[in-house]
Amino acid sequence: MNDSDIEILLVEDNPDDVKLALHAFQKHHLANAVRVVRDGEEALDFLFAPGAEAGRPKLVLLDLKLPKVDGLEVLKRIKADPRTRAIPVVVMTSSREESDLVESYDLGASSYIVKPIDFDQFTEVVRQLGFYWLLLNRTVTAAKG
Amino acid sequence: MNDSDIEILLVEDNPDDVKLALHAFQKHHLANAVRVVRDGEEALDFLFAPGAEAGRPKLVLLDLKLPKVDGLEVLKRIKADPRTRAIPVVVMTSSREESDLVESYDLGASSYIVKPIDFDQFTEVVRQLGFYWLLLNRTVTAAKG
Repeated sequence: MNDSDIEILLVEDNPDDVKLALHAFQKHHLANAVRVVRDGEEALDFLFAPGAEAGRPKLVLLDLKLPKVDGLEVLKRIKADPRTRAIPVVVMTSSREESDLVESYDLGASSYIVKPIDFDQFTEVVRQLGFYWLLLNRTVTAAKG
Repeated sequence: MNDSDIEILLVEDNPDDVKLALHAFQKHHLANAVRVVRDGEEALDFLFAPGAEAGRPKLVLLDLKLPKVDGLEVLKRIKADPRTRAIPVVVMTSSREESDLVESYDLGASSYIVKPIDFDQFTEVVRQLGFYWLLLNRTVTAAKG
């Protein structure tokens, strides 16, 4: 598939969580529209590499504890750049620490979701948030470049 | 009921939209947790009057075209005040104007929803967003005062 069809960038290093998320998106025929990257560096490459503008996603689902470049740094870079700042970033993490919550919102996260431990609940949460951010929410047309 | 049970502040001057929204919340047994105000001034009074801290909502659903004080000004005041800035504000409007969208996000709106014209779709959208922001999303514990 072409990068221009990517709707969701899932930034997640836990293979089980990736599997569950893709399973949830599959139910909504969205699995093909998801690009999975396993660390923060890969996320930044996907968003900012030359030519990336054609394939920028409509939603970033961002884990916080990531190899190489951590999630808060990825968030900061997305919100600091006019080409990507309008993309809603939903932090999806197992961290319940107030400091992560505060910092995520300070850096411009749209929403903060604590991953449910239960399999079915996790799937349902991913389904709901995909629906909310891709179908209900309107975003500003991103600046090109 | 007590103001401390308020979960949603619905700022909306159109009686039909209020009725539909309450109908949607009723289905989720949330109607009792909704405070409806009909203009921007009433919204600011509810949020900032002495004693308001006990009853601050977990979500503000904000129309933009409002009597007295308009929606964007209400949004600006909510996001400028440390006592209320952590409350997610979802703009729910019939405006599809890009300038409203851009300004809403610039002022700190969490999300921007265009009201569906269809009755059933409107109810479904309100149901979905109530679920998303009250049950899935985590917010920072608001500063007291």
